[in-house]
Amino acid sequence: MKKKVSLKDIAQKVGVSIALVSYVLNNKKQGRISEEISKKIRDTAQKLNYRPNQIAKSLKTNKTNTIGLVVADIANPFSSTIARIIEDEAEKNNYTVIVGSSDEKEERSKRIINVMLDRQVDGIIFAPAANDQPLIEYLQKSKVPFVLIDRYFPGLKVNYVAVNNTEASFTGVEHLVMAGCRRIGFIGFKTTLSHLQDRKKGYQSALKKNGITVSKSWIKEVPIDTSAEEVKEAIKALLALPEPIDALFFASNKVSTLGLKYINRLGLKVPNDLKILSFDQSDATDLFYATLTHIRQPLDEMGKVAVQTLVELMTRPKKITQIHLPAKLVIGQSTGVNTIEQPV
Amino acid sequence: MKKKVSLKDIAQKVGVSIALVSYVLNNKKQGRISEEISKKIRDTAQKLNYRPNQIAKSLKTNKTNTIGLVVADIANPFSSTIARIIEDEAEKNNYTVIVGSSDEKEERSKRIINVMLDRQVDGIIFAPAANDQPLIEYLQKSKVPFVLIDRYFPGLKVNYVAVNNTEASFTGVEHLVMAGCRRIGFIGFKTTLSHLQDRKKGYQSALKKNGITVSKSWIKEVPIDTSAEEVKEAIKALLALPEPIDALFFASNKVSTLGLKYINRLGLKVPNDLKILSFDQSDATDLFYATLTHIRQPLDEMGKVAVQTLVELMTRPKKITQIHLPAKLVIGQSTGVNTIEQPV
Repeated sequence: MKKKVSLKDIAQKVGVSIALVSYVLNNKKQGRISEEISKKIRDTAQKLNYRPNQIAKSLKTNKTNTIGLVVADIANPFSSTIARIIEDEAEKNNYTVIVGSSDEKEERSKRIINVMLDRQVDGIIFAPAANDQPLIEYLQKSKVPFVLIDRYFPGLKVNYVAVNNTEASFTGVEHLVMAGCRRIGFIGFKTTLSHLQDRKKGYQSALKKNGITVSKSWIKEVPIDTSAEEVKEAIKALLALPEPIDALFFASNKVSTLGLKYINRLGLKVPNDLKILSFDQSDATDLFYATLTHIRQPLDEMGKVAVQTLVELMTRPKKITQIHLPAKLVIGQSTGVNTIEQPV
Repeated sequence: MKKKVSLKDIAQKVGVSIALVSYVLNNKKQGRISEEISKKIRDTAQKLNYRPNQIAKSLKTNKTNTIGLVVADIANPFSSTIARIIEDEAEKNNYTVIVGSSDEKEERSKRIINVMLDRQVDGIIFAPAANDQPLIEYLQKSKVPFVLIDRYFPGLKVNYVAVNNTEASFTGVEHLVMAGCRRIGFIGFKTTLSHLQDRKKGYQSALKKNGITVSKSWIKEVPIDTSAEEVKEAIKALLALPEPIDALFFASNKVSTLGLKYINRLGLKVPNDLKILSFDQSDATDLFYATLTHIRQPLDEMGKVAVQTLVELMTRPKKITQIHLPAKLVIGQSTGVNTIEQPV
């Protein structure tokens, strides 16, 4: 690796002191240094491709105009779409975003957060992994402003922007009940993350409210880094029940993408053989032969509000902001209810 | 914004000089400072949550153990999947990755590259935008090791890892000819990016080699930030030709995802009404009712080789490495050729 050009290199080349080079390149002591020497130093710096050390500079100004974004898994369309929205919104505010993934692991969360703190980001937007509370407390102590996104920890007094998961699931599952479903299966994640727990709660209370006793055998929970095989086994088990399910609620886009692939392979006809509801969607679920009834998360708003909240925090300390945005139920063919095109 | 804790804060709290605090926290002049004072300084630093300035430190060691990754559009599954692979491979080599998007714009490429150089990354993996040659020359001058990925500029002597686009397209289009197609449409991007140009070249030479005269009306090129509408218009035009096409080659996953959605809406039956070949695939194309014949890019290998090449470059200067990896034709139902399951 070639060494970076330093002030010393320029000083040696021109035959002056390092201090003099520093004065000229930092526009100090102007008028006290001859024009000729100044020009020679500047020309040499350019010729040698000297790169002023922005980090050393930012140590003084305490501002780097960068935002760190930590997502769960950049390969998940939810994360990558929201990353793109945050990049665009940050750009409007004159910030550049650097992104990293936690892979739902505390250790990796901590490493990427540290990299961002070390890189002196002005603020952080963070989708924490399960059990990341200690890391959030660590962030609080770092004094760097941060906003959680998508996930939150009830009880922790930190800024976050999330979705109304319980209400959204409730509405979606109630729609299934209205569509005539009585045995509604649920495939979600086995996790303590409250936004995912809330989706299960919404499912359970919608059934309860409609006089349906939830059977434990209807609820399947796969690991958060689930494989296609685990989702397949969950669906198989739900279909093999003495009284098989008549509808299925996929509690995340990852589960629905994997689940629909298997349902395609099985040759099951949606919505006739099985009605489907999905929390979140993606290009993938868009290409399923039956358009998918799904809970659409307000990704655009979530990303924008997160950036705006962070920018406000960076300019002046504020009270804690905790925002739950409403999600929308989008009715497609997969729940078998005829939809009427609404004029826009 | 609360101010960060400085050496001065600790010095004031303990009632000693800043220099003394610095000596203790940097383990200097040991043996010449009393144990009692040392302990008091360390305890106070911990209590105040003092964060040693890693950037100032890294200015000395010249190593940050971070890699910058610049992708075209993090919301595109190609970019986000490869980002994830690069993160995982970098982790194995004890590097953390920070990611940013160029949005296919020179200006944004330059800004994110500058942010990464300013953050003192040890190396950069970069999927350049069209017309990014000046930026690549700028990177060369910065002396920071870098490897281009996916894209390359013939004539520029820089390290890159890419796919054999011409050969892969040739093989795919020849498969369409073998499947009986004679009027094969092409939807690609209007761009100077050579890896996308190469896909068109492969298409043209496969037809030529098989005695088919390519009609200009078969080739549609949409902007690289294309909308669903533009892809729809391209397909419409190809189907409205006096002699309509019997097959369609989508030259990227973005085009094929948008295109298949429209084909779904039209109610066209694939492969009977139209045979489809796609360069690259995604979860989206996986959910199309007919499994998609596609050119599978070796994303895993591309990401790993890029990291390995970069790590080698960072440890010792090397000759230029330019790698074209082979892609694989995966035959699905969309080209109407019966496939025989091969024992694995």
